[in-house]
Amino acid sequence: MHSFKELSQLFSKHFEQNHFPAQPVNLYEPCQYFLQIGGKRIRPVLTLLGNELFAEINQDAYAVATAIELFHNFTLIHDDMMDAASLRRGMQTVHTKYNSNIALLSGDVMLIKAYDYIAKIHPDYLARILTLFNKTAAEVCEGQQMDMDFEQQETVLLEDYIKMIGLKTSVLLAAALQIGAIIGGASEGNCNHLYQFGLNLGIAFQIQDDYLDAFGDPEKFGKEIGGDIKQNKKTFLFLHALDIANADQKKQIEHLISTNPNNKVDQMLSIFEACNVGDWANELKEKYFQAAMKHLDDIAVTSMRKKPLVELANFLIERES
Amino acid sequence: MHSFKELSQLFSKHFEQNHFPAQPVNLYEPCQYFLQIGGKRIRPVLTLLGNELFAEINQDAYAVATAIELFHNFTLIHDDMMDAASLRRGMQTVHTKYNSNIALLSGDVMLIKAYDYIAKIHPDYLARILTLFNKTAAEVCEGQQMDMDFEQQETVLLEDYIKMIGLKTSVLLAAALQIGAIIGGASEGNCNHLYQFGLNLGIAFQIQDDYLDAFGDPEKFGKEIGGDIKQNKKTFLFLHALDIANADQKKQIEHLISTNPNNKVDQMLSIFEACNVGDWANELKEKYFQAAMKHLDDIAVTSMRKKPLVELANFLIERES
Repeated sequence: MHSFKELSQLFSKHFEQNHFPAQPVNLYEPCQYFLQIGGKRIRPVLTLLGNELFAEINQDAYAVATAIELFHNFTLIHDDMMDAASLRRGMQTVHTKYNSNIALLSGDVMLIKAYDYIAKIHPDYLARILTLFNKTAAEVCEGQQMDMDFEQQETVLLEDYIKMIGLKTSVLLAAALQIGAIIGGASEGNCNHLYQFGLNLGIAFQIQDDYLDAFGDPEKFGKEIGGDIKQNKKTFLFLHALDIANADQKKQIEHLISTNPNNKVDQMLSIFEACNVGDWANELKEKYFQAAMKHLDDIAVTSMRKKPLVELANFLIERES
Repeated sequence: MHSFKELSQLFSKHFEQNHFPAQPVNLYEPCQYFLQIGGKRIRPVLTLLGNELFAEINQDAYAVATAIELFHNFTLIHDDMMDAASLRRGMQTVHTKYNSNIALLSGDVMLIKAYDYIAKIHPDYLARILTLFNKTAAEVCEGQQMDMDFEQQETVLLEDYIKMIGLKTSVLLAAALQIGAIIGGASEGNCNHLYQFGLNLGIAFQIQDDYLDAFGDPEKFGKEIGGDIKQNKKTFLFLHALDIANADQKKQIEHLISTNPNNKVDQMLSIFEACNVGDWANELKEKYFQAAMKHLDDIAVTSMRKKPLVELANFLIERES
C-alpha cells in the first residue's frame, strides 16, 4: 500500500513522457506544451487509490489514470477557449500561445489520445470502464454548458448550481475512483459507495473554493481574493446571499453587479458578512464532507486500507489529518 | 445480401432518431440540428458493406456505423469553425446559428457520443475496433492540421498533398470498411485488402472532386465552378500546374494568386488547359481507382459478394456500372 503522496509521485513519474508523435508539429506540440504546464494530477491518483483500496495496483490503472488526466487537460484547453482565458497557472493558454484553430484541434486529439489509453486495458472490464468514462465525459460537457447558461441568467437556484458543480467537477473525481475500484475487482456496492464518496467530496471542495475566494488568506489561496466577485460569478456564497438578503441588501447587490464600482469586492464582502454567508458555507461544506466520509465508512474493507483516501480527503478539504 | 442503395436506406432509417438527451438544450439541440442537415451517410454504409462482404449483418455493425457517422459530423462541426464557414448544405453551420462556444462543446459531446456507441459492441472485438477507431480519428485530426498548415505555405509537394488527403479523407473510409469486415469475421489479409481498397478509392474520389471544381458541369456538380481557384486552394490540379508550368505560366499563376482579378477563374482554367492538367488528373484518378479495384479483387470471397462494393465504387467515381 502507498500513501496519497507516494502515489502522486509514482503517477507523475509515469506521466512525464511525450504522449504524442512529433508530426504534425502544430497539432502535437501544443498538446505536450499544455501538459508540461503541470497540475496537481489529483484525478489520476484517485484511480490508483481506488484500485489500491481493493487490490495491488494493476498496470491498467496507470493506463486509465493517464486517460483521465488527458481527458481533464482536453477540457481545460477547450474551457480556456470558451472563457477567453489567457493564462493558466501563470502560463499562456493554448489558444493564446498558438491560436484558436490549433487549440480546438489539439484539444480534440488529446481527447482521442485519452481513449487510446483506455483501449489498452484488459477486455474483461474494457466495456464497463469505457461506458462509465463516456457517461462521465458527457456529464462534464453538460456541466460546462450549464455553467455558461448560468452566466446569462439573472439568478440560479442553489440546487441547480449544485447540480452543475456535480457535473462539471465532481463526477470526474467520482468516476476516477470508481474505475480504479473496478480494476481492483470491487463489488458493485463498494464501487457505488466509492463513487458517492468522490461526488460528495467534490462538492465540498467546490464550496471551499468559493469560500476561499471570498474569505481566504491571499497568500495561502494563491489567487487574488474576490476574483469571483469581480467577475460577477454565481458562486455558492453569492447565490445564498441573494437568497437570504433583505430588500435593502438585495438592492445593494444588484447595484454592485450593474455598476461595478472600484470597491465592489469590499462592499460585497460586507454584505456576505452581514448575511453570515461564511458560516453557512462552512456548514454546507461540512455536510457534504461528512456525507463523503459516511460513504467511505460504508465500504467493506479494513480501515487501514482507507487511510490514503482519508489523507486525500483531508488534504483536499484542508484539514489537519 | 443488400445493394449499396438498400443499405443506405436501411442505415438512414436506423440513424433517424434523436441521439441525445433533451437537457441542457444549448448543448444537445445544436447536435441534433446539425445531424438533421443530412448528408450522404457514405461512411456508415461502408461499415455495413464491409460486414456483409463476409457475413450477415450483425447489429454491432449498426452501432459502429452510427459511431462513425457521429464522428464524421463532429469533425464537420469543428472544421466549419476552423474554416469560418457559415453554410453547409445550404444550412447555417453550428457556430453561425448558435455561437462558437456552443459549436465547440457540441462537437466535443458528439465525439463522446460516438464512443458511447462503440462501447456497446461485443467485447470479443471491442478493443481491436476501438484501437482502429482511435488511430483513424487521430489521423483525421492530423490531416486537418496538415491542410491548415498547407494554407500558410507557398507551395506543397504533391506527395505531401496526397498524404494529407489520405489522412483527412481516406483513412476514415478505409477504417469504416475494415471495422465492418472485423465484425463480419474477416481474416487479417482480407481486412487489409479492404482497408487499401478504401484508402485508394478515397484518394481517387478527392482527385475527381478537385477535377470537377475546375472542369465539372455546374448543374451536375451542385457547386459553383472554380470555388477552389477563387480561394487559392492547393488542389491536385493547382499543384500539378505549378509543377509543370513554364516560367511565363508560373509568373501568371503567381500574379493571379496575389492580385485576385475578376476573371481569375477563367485565366487559371486557361493555364490548367495549356498544361493539360485535366488529362493528367484523370490519369491519376484512374491509377488510384485501379489500385482500389485490384485490392477488391484480391479479397478472398466470391465476386457475387463484391457486387455492392463495385456498385459503390462506380457511384463514387461517377461511372456507369
